[in-house]
Order: sequence, then structure tokens, then C-alpha cells
Amino acid sequence: MMEYPLLLRTFLLRAAKFFPNKELVSSYPNETFRYTYADYFKRTCQLAHALESLGVKKGDRVASFALNNHRHMELYYGVPCIGAVLHTVNPRLPQHHMVYIINHAEDKVMFIDEDLLFLIEAIKDQLKTVKHFVVLSQSGKRPETSLSPVCLYDELISQFPESYDFPVDLDEWDPAFICYTSATTGDPKGVVYTHRGLVLHSYAVAVMLGGSEDACILHIVPMFHANAWGGPFVGVLAGCKQVFPGREVLNMEKLCRIIADEKVTFTAGVPTIWMMLYDYLEKGGWHDFSSFKAIFSGGAPVPRYLMEGLNEKYNFPIVQAYGMTETSPLATVALPKSYMADWPMDKLYDVRSSAGLLAGGLEMKLVNDKGEEVKWDGKEWGEVLLRGPWIAKEYYKDPERSRPAFEGGWLHTGDVGTIDEEGYLRLVDRTKDLVKSGGEWISSVDLENAIMAHPKVLEAAVIGVPHPKWQERPLACVVPVPGETVTADELKEFLQDKVKVSWWIPDEFVFLDGIPKTSVGKFNKIDLRKMYAAGELKG
Amino acid sequence: MMEYPLLLRTFLLRAAKFFPNKELVSSYPNETFRYTYADYFKRTCQLAHALESLGVKKGDRVASFALNNHRHMELYYGVPCIGAVLHTVNPRLPQHHMVYIINHAEDKVMFIDEDLLFLIEAIKDQLKTVKHFVVLSQSGKRPETSLSPVCLYDELISQFPESYDFPVDLDEWDPAFICYTSATTGDPKGVVYTHRGLVLHSYAVAVMLGGSEDACILHIVPMFHANAWGGPFVGVLAGCKQVFPGREVLNMEKLCRIIADEKVTFTAGVPTIWMMLYDYLEKGGWHDFSSFKAIFSGGAPVPRYLMEGLNEKYNFPIVQAYGMTETSPLATVALPKSYMADWPMDKLYDVRSSAGLLAGGLEMKLVNDKGEEVKWDGKEWGEVLLRGPWIAKEYYKDPERSRPAFEGGWLHTGDVGTIDEEGYLRLVDRTKDLVKSGGEWISSVDLENAIMAHPKVLEAAVIGVPHPKWQERPLACVVPVPGETVTADELKEFLQDKVKVSWWIPDEFVFLDGIPKTSVGKFNKIDLRKMYAAGELKG
Repeated sequence: MMEYPLLLRTFLLRAAKFFPNKELVSSYPNETFRYTYADYFKRTCQLAHALESLGVKKGDRVASFALNNHRHMELYYGVPCIGAVLHTVNPRLPQHHMVYIINHAEDKVMFIDEDLLFLIEAIKDQLKTVKHFVVLSQSGKRPETSLSPVCLYDELISQFPESYDFPVDLDEWDPAFICYTSATTGDPKGVVYTHRGLVLHSYAVAVMLGGSEDACILHIVPMFHANAWGGPFVGVLAGCKQVFPGREVLNMEKLCRIIADEKVTFTAGVPTIWMMLYDYLEKGGWHDFSSFKAIFSGGAPVPRYLMEGLNEKYNFPIVQAYGMTETSPLATVALPKSYMADWPMDKLYDVRSSAGLLAGGLEMKLVNDKGEEVKWDGKEWGEVLLRGPWIAKEYYKDPERSRPAFEGGWLHTGDVGTIDEEGYLRLVDRTKDLVKSGGEWISSVDLENAIMAHPKVLEAAVIGVPHPKWQERPLACVVPVPGETVTADELKEFLQDKVKVSWWIPDEFVFLDGIPKTSVGKFNKIDLRKMYAAGELKG
Repeated sequence: MMEYPLLLRTFLLRAAKFFPNKELVSSYPNETFRYTYADYFKRTCQLAHALESLGVKKGDRVASFALNNHRHMELYYGVPCIGAVLHTVNPRLPQHHMVYIINHAEDKVMFIDEDLLFLIEAIKDQLKTVKHFVVLSQSGKRPETSLSPVCLYDELISQFPESYDFPVDLDEWDPAFICYTSATTGDPKGVVYTHRGLVLHSYAVAVMLGGSEDACILHIVPMFHANAWGGPFVGVLAGCKQVFPGREVLNMEKLCRIIADEKVTFTAGVPTIWMMLYDYLEKGGWHDFSSFKAIFSGGAPVPRYLMEGLNEKYNFPIVQAYGMTETSPLATVALPKSYMADWPMDKLYDVRSSAGLLAGGLEMKLVNDKGEEVKWDGKEWGEVLLRGPWIAKEYYKDPERSRPAFEGGWLHTGDVGTIDEEGYLRLVDRTKDLVKSGGEWISSVDLENAIMAHPKVLEAAVIGVPHPKWQERPLACVVPVPGETVTADELKEFLQDKVKVSWWIPDEFVFLDGIPKTSVGKFNKIDLRKMYAAGELKG
């Protein structure tokens, strides 16, 4: 077979030529912008010339600092297709992390949404490598900014020709994207995506989740999170309509309007969004989900009440998927098998609320603390190890933290789970959050879910704290529902028939006003442990 | 991303572990054999050991000489997954071609269906490299055969363990399959398929044509034709049910029974099969096609009456695809775009009867005889050139014929076509079958179709013959419908309003009892030209 490299270029050229009339739609607060793949291609060609004019060369990193909009989509192809690397910077990171990753990636040019400029202005003096700032502006107004040198994106690219000869002689192993994980400990870690990895991930996602020309993908996942989970690449591969909701993504009324107006068939996002949506719907919010075929949820487990409620009351069919920045991100998808169609609802939701089945093209094994593969019985616990062509092999310029995470050619995910006879993965906990009590493991996640099932509990986080006899014991940090009080004894009583064995029940409960969170909204257990060590958590 | 090779192994292991209960069904004249992917995997492991015991090493060629059945499917994975190369020999080839390709590929072991043994017995003394013959037997009877040394497949593999450690350290560029084109001129040409090419082709087929776990694929395409068009790989990637019809493939009554009983959702085949099926249906044959989602047709154009008839009378939705042995084979698929849904039927059939849109991952261009790309106006003619990761780069051990066919890193298909504004390819003719009259091209295929539209004509083939003034003129070889007679004048009159311009109408018509065919059933124009040269074609 030909030594033809797997490049994003091939997808781009095909969409431009074979699907020139299909639409890309970008929502802004005061307008809905629409154009075709033919137009998109022309502007992406102009962008390619513009990047060259700014001195961007093969291998150079170019940062985007933007929400989901059509200019960001132009960067998604324009930057990697000339051989440069798009660094999608997460605007929700703490300032010192932003500074760290922009300097660590050595970004040469930054493309910034006009209404996010202030975040970069605040750190500009600490940025060591950025030579140009380009403002992504829909208003067309020249913003007052302290950034320099600065120019407007549309003005910049409009100077250049609408065709560009994207090179076919790139290497498929060349980097195309870089994204940093939001670190819970230490500095964020960079994951480099190659053209090859992104192309293969696109095929796998399209095969597992669907990706045909008649689809309409709504990009709810931020484009600064692991390549928007691959959606923009799948969309171009499929030649299908794509919708970029911009700021409207957090406005459930507008989001529902977009879904109905654009006849969205697929979308994906984190459970936080689905919770907001469910809340909106439960309050009687207007919606029309008749166009939907599937909604993918990842990043954290979807609570079962939410999956059932959205599905049964609103015909909003959530499919759970599992992955992480290091896995491009698709690793597993919880699609039931066809012969399960007549299973009772409850058993079917057991399957649908699992992490799912392995994506075609990867390998997975679950390994216990002795390094042995666990039995596929749905009971034995093991750390999830993954390998395959769209799994990272290292963290960028970080050999020390890469070594343990990628030992033996497998990604050690740090997630602990079980796998059943049918091959469905279920996550139990993070390895580092397991509580080791008397030589046995306790899942902090299982405990948290059991506690949060109490009607007076809003949030609960469990950490392991040192114990003279049992080595570690679980400590529960509980936030009561506002206006309610709940006691340790009430909770211990409540947990009796809800935990695997009675010694899982925490001896100590502390009551807080809130649980500290990471920048992506997960419980920050590092902070909880620090607070405990400092004597700040008292029952 | 990890340097994880693209290997068929990954698909095999995943199906065995995650879809152990899904079925493979193999039809034999007196029984229907069923087993699961778990069983299939065990026997494929045994086969791997058996191959080693026969001295098969990495890179060795192993021949299959079999119809579509479950043992052939075991060879499909067992052979390449140990690093050897499966050579699927076409039992319909002329003897001298069989001898040529088995010797040219240097096949070391041959696996032969019990009822095809006689074909190999007839040529055994001319085979220079085959060291072992293995009989694929469902009857379990030890056949009387002059082949030696010979053993029974099931007896051979039953001696070995049901697990095997398929190597992950193969190179994705290693050969996995070899298939020879049925040559119209000279010796057949070998096309080598790499693991990488087959994996990528599988993804592309699954994306373009569908490949999910709830599918049921019926393998009508012979497994000795270009990897059964990739179906067996897509099936394992999807973890879906697969059905192997064996000899029943030409028995329309049994085929319809299989389709209904097994609830087949996808199948693929050449128009010859659909013609046989249509004939059966038109005679009132029993059928139930309610499970079908799509039927793919390739290898030759589907006549429009057949596509319309099957679709409208029998809800048998044919989707036309285009490709060849050199393209693994998927190159284009004639799926209408979603916004064409409300087009008038006639315009929609124009789209559906085209060769279609390029598969995602390839590049295509149409080049005229000056080497320039043609306009995408649906009118300008050009030769179809293709490149991409599942396009052959050469013919096996044949640099001389490889050079012109793969010049400049593109496959020169020898097919001439047009491409319209929407990107749909339409084939006009083979470059070598075009008639050049007075400096202008005439499409022999267009003429043939126009002539065959006459109710008294069964078949028509057009070749170019030398002409003193016009350089070449078309000669029509016509087979009347049995019991009918038709004259040249009748046909000339009939063609008046059916050809592009009046000078396309052939001056000469000759009437024959039949048109000579190639081994795959196409008009053999080489033979027609020889007959003309020998003075055997007279009007």
C-alpha cells in the first residue's frame, strides 16, 4: 500500500471539495453566523498564509484562547495543516497555570477571543515566547488592549489568497495539537497529539458513535478540552453540519433553541451541563429534542437519576463514554449490545451507566496491585491500563512524570475499575483516592455516592486519613442541603444497608459549607488532605 | 502518541473479549453451522499453532482456495496475525492463471475446500512451492485425493492449544494478504495488502457504509475477491454477526431464506447477483427483506432499471460503490447527500447510479490526456487517479507493469469519468475501450447501454476498429433476445435520440449468439478485437 501519511489535510480537502455546500454555524450573543465548508476552506487557506506571514514555521506552537466558534474551527485545521501545532489553552485555568503552560509550550502566536482578552492582559508580562497577539472578533471592533503587537483576525487573513497548497509531505507522526491536563498536583502536564493519532481517533469515534453526512454535531465540549473530544475532526470527516454555540453553551434556553432550530443529531459534554439542562427542563423549560440520535457524556460519571430522568421524561438519550486528555479522549463507550434490547430496564441502565466497551483499535487490561490481570467477573478491582494508536506515550518535556504513567508501554490511567463477562468496564475510584483500611480497599467514590443519596446531603467527599490500627480510615466531608442539618449518627444509620460491608462506614464525618473544587469542577481531594493535615477538618 | 502498530490482531482480540457471544454463521448444503466469536477465536489460535507446525514463518505466503465459510474466515485472521500472508486464490480463474499466481506468490501451504480439490489436483504437478495441502472439510470425510502431503483441517488444528499469543511487534507495513487481479491481458497482477491498509480500509468502510454491533453482514462477495471487499474485517471491528453463505450464494431461494432467517442488515455483491435475484423475485420468489439497511453493489455498474426495480418493487435498497483490487477496494460510494432528500426521484437515481463520492481518507483527481485536472462540471472527461493509505503502490514483483499504473505516486485506474459540482464521479469508459473517432472520444459503455435499452437486444459490446478517414469508428457487437431478430437499421433509428451526437452511432453492427466474457463475467473486448482482426466479425 502507498506510503500515504495520515494527515488532517486529507479530511479538510475532501470536505471542501465533496461537501462544499454543507454548513458550519456559529452562535454569538447577537447573531448566528453561517457559512459553508467551501467558505470555511477559503478562510482556512487565508489563515495558513497569515500564519506564515507571522513567521510561524513547521513545529512551532500557536495558542488558541477561545470558546467554540467558527474562527477557532479555522485554527483547528489551519494551524496543523501547515505543520504547526495548535495549543488550545483553557481560559478557566488558574493564572499561574496559564502562564506555566504558555511558556512551557513556547507558544509563538496567540489567537484570543475578544471578550477573553482581559485574562491574557493580566499575565502578559510573564509570557516569555509570544511574539504576536491576534484578536478573534465577531464585533469587528478594534478592542482597546494593552497587548502588543496585536491585530484583528479578519483583517489579518483578508490580505491573503483564498487558496493554499497544504503540504502532503508532513510526517503523520508530526505533532498537530497540544493540550495540557488540568493538574490536581503540580504543574499541568502536556499531551501532544499527532496527525496520525487524530485521524485514527476520528475514524474510531465515527465508527463507535456515528459520523455520517446527515448528522449535525453541536459542539458543547469546549474546544480547549482534548480537541473538543474529536468532534470537529469527525464532523469534517463526515462532511456534516457543525454548530458552535460560543457563550450560549451555558444558557439552557438558548441551547435548547439551537438544538431545535439546527436539528442537532449529536452532541457531547460533561455531566455538569446535563445537570443544568435537567434543572431547566424540570422547571418546564421549552425544548424539542426530536432530531437527537445520541448524546455522549464523559469527563465524570453521569448520576443514574439524571440519565434515567433525561431519557425517560425528555427523550434525551445519554450514552456514557470514558476517556481522558491522554486518550484523545475516546477509550470506552457504554452502548448496550443488540441482544440486550429485551433486558429489563434496570439491568439495561446498569449497562448504560457503566464506562462501557473498549473502542475498536485499542487494548485495555485491568491490573491489581500485584501486577496481575484481574478476572472479568465484574468484581475484582484493577487499575485500568490502555494502549493504542491514539493513546499518549508521554507528557511533553516531562520525563520524570512520564515514567510511572506510561510504564511498560501502557498508559496507567490511575482509574480503578472492574470488568464484567460482557466486557463492560465500571470505574470504582482513582487509585490515589482509594482508602486502604486493614489491608482492604474502600472506594471513596462508592461511599460518596451512598452518602449523597441522603436527601439532606448536597455534596460529600471521602478521603483516607491515617489510623494507628487500620493504617487508613475513611473521613467523610459533607455539605448539607442549604437550610438542613444532618448528623453523623443519622448518616451512619443511613449507610448501614448501602455499603458493601459495614466497616466501609466512616468513623468520622465533618460538615462543611462547600467542598473545594479543581478548575474543571471535580472535588479537590488534595486540598482536603492538606486541610486535614493542618487540623482544619474537625468532626 | 504511542508507536502502536495498526494490526488486524487488535480487531481480533477485541472481538474475542468484548463480543464473545456474537455469532458467526456458515451455510453448507446440508447444515447451518453456528459458533461464537469466543469459539472462533479459540480455533483461530489453534490454526496459528498449526501453521507454525507446518513451518509457516513470518512473511510466508499461505494460499486459500475456498468459498465463503467459517474455516476461510479463520484463515482470514489466523494467517496474517502470525505474520504470514494469506493469498486468496480465485477458483474461477483459468488453469494457467491459477498455476501462474500460486507459483508467482510462492505459496507454501494451500487450504482447499473439499469440493474444490479436483481443480488443484488437475494442476498439482505444475505447482513449484506448495509443501502441504490442507482440506477444509465440513463433511468430516477424508477425501480420496492425489494431493500429497495432505491432511484435514479440523484434525490438524485440534491437536493444538486454544490460546495463542498473537505478536504485537509486527510492523503495520508488513504484508497481510495478497490477491491477484483477474487479468484481461497478460498474467494476473498481484496486489499486496498491509495490516495498516486493511485496518484503515476497515475504518473507512465502517464510517461510510456503517458497521455497528447490531449489524448482520452477509458475505456475498467471494472471499477470494479483494478481501471480500473488507467485509470480514469490518464485521470483526464492529463485533457484529456475520453470515457466510458458501455455495448457497448462487441459489436465490436459499439466499433469500438466509437473509430473512438471520435478519441480515448489510450485504454487498456484483450486479450479476442482483440480476439473478431480480429474476427470481420477478418470478414471484419468496423473500423478506425487512431487516435490510443497505446493499452495496460494485465491480460493474448496476443497470438503472435493476436499481429502480429492486428498490421500488422489493424495498431492496442498492447503494453503488466503486473500487478495484488495487484500492482494497473501497474508493467511492454513491450515497445521496441529506439535502437531496426532497429531490425528484429521477434526479436522485442519477446520483444513486453514479460511482459516488470519495471515501474519507483518500484523494482523487480526474486528469485529461494533456495531464490537466478536468473541471468539476459533470461534463469534462478525465482518467480517475487515486491515492491514499489503502491504495496499492505497485504490483507484486512486477516493476514493468507497476511503472505506468502508479506513475507519480497516484494509481492510474484506467477508468475515464466525469465529476460534477457536488463531487459525484460518473464513469464513462475504460481508457483502453474509448473509441477515438475524428479526434473526438466516444464512450463504448454509453453506446452499449443505449443499444441494450432496445427491447430486442440482450447484450451489446462496442469496440473501436480502424477507419481510414476517422482513425477509429465504433463497431457494435449485438446479441438479440432469444427468438427475436433485430436489424442494423432498426438500431440506428433507435439510437438517433439516445446518443450525445449523431456521429456516435456505429456504422457497422454485427450480430452474435453471445459476447465472449472474462473470468469475472465482463465483456472480453480483447477477444472481440482479436476476432475482428481475424475477420470473424462481419455485419
